[in-house]
Amino acid sequence: MPGQGLDYSALFNRELPPPAAPWGGHPRYNFIGGHSDPDMVPTEEFIESAERVFRGDARNISMYNFSGGPQGILPLREFLVEKLGEHRGINTTIDDVLITSGSGQGIELINEILLEEGDTAIVEAFSFSGALGNLRRRKVNIVGIDVDQDGMRMDHLARALEDLRERGVRPKYIYTIPTLQNPTGTVLTMDRRLRMLELSEEYGVPIFEDECYADLIFEGEYENAIRSLDDSNRVLHIGSFSKTLGPGTRLGYVVASWDVMSRLLSRKNDAGTGVMDQMIVGDYFTHHYEDHILEVRSSLQRKCDVLGSALRESFGPSVEFEVPRGGMYLWVKLPDGVDSRNLEGPALREGIAFNPGPDWSADPDAAAGYIRLCFALPSEEEIREGVEKLADVFRREGALP
Amino acid sequence: MPGQGLDYSALFNRELPPPAAPWGGHPRYNFIGGHSDPDMVPTEEFIESAERVFRGDARNISMYNFSGGPQGILPLREFLVEKLGEHRGINTTIDDVLITSGSGQGIELINEILLEEGDTAIVEAFSFSGALGNLRRRKVNIVGIDVDQDGMRMDHLARALEDLRERGVRPKYIYTIPTLQNPTGTVLTMDRRLRMLELSEEYGVPIFEDECYADLIFEGEYENAIRSLDDSNRVLHIGSFSKTLGPGTRLGYVVASWDVMSRLLSRKNDAGTGVMDQMIVGDYFTHHYEDHILEVRSSLQRKCDVLGSALRESFGPSVEFEVPRGGMYLWVKLPDGVDSRNLEGPALREGIAFNPGPDWSADPDAAAGYIRLCFALPSEEEIREGVEKLADVFRREGALP
Repeated sequence: MPGQGLDYSALFNRELPPPAAPWGGHPRYNFIGGHSDPDMVPTEEFIESAERVFRGDARNISMYNFSGGPQGILPLREFLVEKLGEHRGINTTIDDVLITSGSGQGIELINEILLEEGDTAIVEAFSFSGALGNLRRRKVNIVGIDVDQDGMRMDHLARALEDLRERGVRPKYIYTIPTLQNPTGTVLTMDRRLRMLELSEEYGVPIFEDECYADLIFEGEYENAIRSLDDSNRVLHIGSFSKTLGPGTRLGYVVASWDVMSRLLSRKNDAGTGVMDQMIVGDYFTHHYEDHILEVRSSLQRKCDVLGSALRESFGPSVEFEVPRGGMYLWVKLPDGVDSRNLEGPALREGIAFNPGPDWSADPDAAAGYIRLCFALPSEEEIREGVEKLADVFRREGALP
Repeated sequence: MPGQGLDYSALFNRELPPPAAPWGGHPRYNFIGGHSDPDMVPTEEFIESAERVFRGDARNISMYNFSGGPQGILPLREFLVEKLGEHRGINTTIDDVLITSGSGQGIELINEILLEEGDTAIVEAFSFSGALGNLRRRKVNIVGIDVDQDGMRMDHLARALEDLRERGVRPKYIYTIPTLQNPTGTVLTMDRRLRMLELSEEYGVPIFEDECYADLIFEGEYENAIRSLDDSNRVLHIGSFSKTLGPGTRLGYVVASWDVMSRLLSRKNDAGTGVMDQMIVGDYFTHHYEDHILEVRSSLQRKCDVLGSALRESFGPSVEFEVPRGGMYLWVKLPDGVDSRNLEGPALREGIAFNPGPDWSADPDAAAGYIRLCFALPSEEEIREGVEKLADVFRREGALP
């Protein structure tokens, strides 16, 4: 309590972010974050899996890293090796797979072993806020590369690498979300994937490939992962279970060769990733992955359609967006001159939450005119209602004609 | 693979620890770490809890921090408030409780908000290796205070605080494991608890109280937590579920007032602690805590007896140890001149693992003559066999007469 007891203000590390605000509950119309659809949570199947795995070896609970050691529980790693082979073309083994506590821990660990203050990292100009925030916290120079409908532009990347070389800078990596990019929803073409590998080789810069969303194609197939195109150690690949199953389960993974893996492990000081998540999800996906993912994809496609229609109906032609081939986001461009940061508060007061563009941008101001809407969590009715109310707020605030 | 692809050696952060060695499996006779007893894992009750919680609100899985926000799932925090009141005398509310991914994350977060390179922290001279390692990684000056049979010596603490004040140094905290200290097993007397609070007030230094083992008394009751003796914000209290249930579940907690809590939350960048662990453990303990803990205590007491007898039988009078009032460790003093670090390798080659003292010491060399043995995991037979074989190894290496 302030004014009583010890005053911590002189004791805190001097470079802390602002204190957290008290938690205010979830908004009524929730278009933020990467929440997923509660209807897609497999209650009965989870119970069956829990039965199976709890009747297995109790040492998984009673010991640190019982099955499989610090890289994670064996059945989950075995499932991943299968899935990555079948769905992403990646030829790997359990020795190159590390289970992490969410893909965020993968980003944290990779940054921890590669980055120092003052280093340079290359990213897509619009990119994942968590990855950008991690780089900013580490005082790393962020170089953003433009994205068009085919993903990161390779001509811009080549120019940036050459400019950096001329200035004596070797970037630590090229961070990319090639497949259903966050937030733009674009998919990097195969030509560009191959070109990125060439550039990686030419400039000696690793590729840090984040495929958190790659399972969420609505229909058909994608270009294989960049990791699948390289037969050495050039690509560090991460992914997540949050987007297919739900972010309450904190499970992600890193695929890397031992030269990097042995360093990641030396920095994974968390005494292991939670085994209940690993055991239950591993068992569930081993039995049900194909069915599960088909259901998730078709549900997301329906919701994407509903959100697109609702936007056209309520916002009219003054906003622009591309309908993505998959994923859970629309990246919406507002009318010229509108700053989405000014709309966040008024919308929240009406119970509507969206992500303002600047958090998803290497140069925050460059995305002032964008918002990101996640359509995975709200029901179709909530999407329609929420968008209608959001348009009212925007109009009231002078952001729409 | 070395010699092929990219050479990462020039890209790594220059201050990394050595790379991890490939995982070699668990030793046959395992006296290390804080593993717990597989026979104490409640298989059927976990399945019942899983059924109940998975049939609850699916948004716990599909959303970040659904029930209760970033401080953790409500039922688990409510259970903790009860338990801390009843067993440790702590009067708190769910608003002052943060669920963490193991108590190690509690240490990490508290260090993150309080410490900078060059700061000073006070610890017990023999202390938890994880806490010491975290301080070393942050290049914090570690001041160790002697421990006797009644816990940390308050005369030494007073002198150290005064010395530091004279040198213009305000330590960031006094880290203590007052109840079943790790590794010594001692319990800080009530007089000393009160004296520590006085010193904390006099010198303006918070107390960082780690009660990871406080549930594991064999019989009777303990002195209440230091946190229970302070009605302001002077004591930051952490604890764990690893030692009562198993470290595969990554669950711990911090009790702190909002001035500190709001800072911890601003640094908890993990998108939440895994909800399956939180939900299942919360439900199980809400229904079964008292029975569970009685069973664990009596099992530990039996194993402690077995280990004590085995040591006396196989090692004879040349080793010394105090039988603790609870917990899972014996802290064993070897004959003068023996360095436990030289015995670790030979023992491991025979399939026997123990913790050499230096890792548990503010001054590593001061504990060269100690080993720590954890008796929670091995069966009574494995304890007897393992100790006999360990004595053989020690004798062969000239460490025992």
